[in-house]
Amino acid sequence: MQKKGQFITLEGVDGVGKSTVVPYIEHVLQSHSIPYFITREPGGTPLAEGIRKLLLSDWDESVTAEAELFLIFAARAQHVAEVIKPRIEVGTWVICERFTDASFAYQGGGRHLPLSLVESLAEAVHSEYWPDLTVYLDIDVETALQRRAHRVQDRIEKETVDFFEIARTTYLKLAETESRIVKIDASVPLTELTRSVSNVVQNFVAQQQ
Amino acid sequence: MQKKGQFITLEGVDGVGKSTVVPYIEHVLQSHSIPYFITREPGGTPLAEGIRKLLLSDWDESVTAEAELFLIFAARAQHVAEVIKPRIEVGTWVICERFTDASFAYQGGGRHLPLSLVESLAEAVHSEYWPDLTVYLDIDVETALQRRAHRVQDRIEKETVDFFEIARTTYLKLAETESRIVKIDASVPLTELTRSVSNVVQNFVAQQQ
Repeated sequence: MQKKGQFITLEGVDGVGKSTVVPYIEHVLQSHSIPYFITREPGGTPLAEGIRKLLLSDWDESVTAEAELFLIFAARAQHVAEVIKPRIEVGTWVICERFTDASFAYQGGGRHLPLSLVESLAEAVHSEYWPDLTVYLDIDVETALQRRAHRVQDRIEKETVDFFEIARTTYLKLAETESRIVKIDASVPLTELTRSVSNVVQNFVAQQQ
Repeated sequence: MQKKGQFITLEGVDGVGKSTVVPYIEHVLQSHSIPYFITREPGGTPLAEGIRKLLLSDWDESVTAEAELFLIFAARAQHVAEVIKPRIEVGTWVICERFTDASFAYQGGGRHLPLSLVESLAEAVHSEYWPDLTVYLDIDVETALQRRAHRVQDRIEKETVDFFEIARTTYLKLAETESRIVKIDASVPLTELTRSVSNVVQNFVAQQQ
């Protein structure tokens, strides 16, 4: 039977440094000659990018928590079917910034939707494609806010400190209960953070061989 | 306590004549001096109209059944929160072309998604706002196809006859089990159809008084 590619996700609140550590994950995979593909959510297909645009735009109406959740999972359904699943099936590893854990944290935690609702959408969309490894970058919300202060903020990034505090708390609870999630302290200097991430991925690769 | 407005939905496969009968419903409500508002799905708010555009466009990718369902319910969440609920709460009646029964018929029946998934999204979005009266216009699929043959067909209208057959079967099953749904034979001449619809709405109004 052909070996399936592994599915690695990167999680953490906005500003924690997810994009920054991606090249270090790539470096580990390259050193093992593992074929990989980098992607991020929401988005990844033309329809999913159209949905992303709706999600992150400012609207004169109040965007309901339910609409936000359903839009994210509509984009995810396309991303899984068109991008993630076909690659994993031919043995390519997929590295994705944000996935369903972000929906638990932001729409479940931050927007107070029942986690069971998030779970039922996840099961409908990717029951066979849960991440094999999730690298969760943890940081206090104030530091994350400072780190992204220079960026243009989208609709969700403009949320209150409380919103991100609940998102972080939800991420931390998930990290305690899901063995696939590895929590990394992202408050340390960059060289230390990238070394931690590289080590986690290196160990994960070693376990697959 | 202030009297709530009633919520009336119009259902049936594309081409059956939903838009045609709306003025006859209006006429009944006007004759009783009932304040009302006409709307249709998907759409009804700027974000929901943006979603409608994504839903009905042709894409180079295959649109998954799940994405279609979630997009429709994202639009519905906005429509209920911004348009339907506020009007019903102040005593205005709302007449809506298509609502959750269409999701049962098209995405549940036509796309083979579990009806329990449709139900869980419906409960998340409008547990307190199920229609009080649903007028289901029933017709054989071939006749409906002929009636709309002169129109520009959107992505869903281009579906196969089988798709619409299953949608119709699902509508018929719903009409059997849900007492709020009144089935009307829409294969009859127009004057007869509009008279039937007027009578159903007239009787419904009488029951509220």
